[in-house]
Amino acid sequence: MLALCGALAPAPATGGDPSAGRRLAEACVQCHGANGISVMPNAPNLAGQPEIYFADQLRQFRSGRRASEVMTVIAKPLSDRDIDDLAAWYASISIEATLPR
Amino acid sequence: MLALCGALAPAPATGGDPSAGRRLAEACVQCHGANGISVMPNAPNLAGQPEIYFADQLRQFRSGRRASEVMTVIAKPLSDRDIDDLAAWYASISIEATLPR
Repeated sequence: MLALCGALAPAPATGGDPSAGRRLAEACVQCHGANGISVMPNAPNLAGQPEIYFADQLRQFRSGRRASEVMTVIAKPLSDRDIDDLAAWYASISIEATLPR
Repeated sequence: MLALCGALAPAPATGGDPSAGRRLAEACVQCHGANGISVMPNAPNLAGQPEIYFADQLRQFRSGRRASEVMTVIAKPLSDRDIDDLAAWYASISIEATLPR
């Protein structure tokens, strides 16, 4: 029997614009997928991630506090607004998780 | 109209045992949810994360390369086997992403 579990409850907003984030996210699809589901074994799913977590991590990549050769380069030119918009976009994708038997 | 997007394709295995990982993951539910969907604004969803990504991040927390006060403490006592088992468990949770209009 499959257990169908609830969709993500909305996280507190960072004030980003999901539509603007969606446009910026075109640069992310090659690794993170068009719907935020990873297409690379070493890249995470971003769909439905809590906005606050997402924005914090992207700022950590930008500052170098969180180490990643790829993500540091990608995050470098992003403004705080860009980061909040991207966070709002990915948080707006709802996800459902299904546990294995 | 809602666009229903595909479930995660299985990532290459790290050789972990999802059943063992499920038991270990009982320590994770307070932040990451019983089904791997975050219940905290500053914690990520883990459901369906690619095994290789997941295991690498947990090793980074254990070594301190990825900074997190909470996760460093939690990852410290984990063996490589524990990490692979946890990676296998979370990867075994299938997810579906639904884009907003």
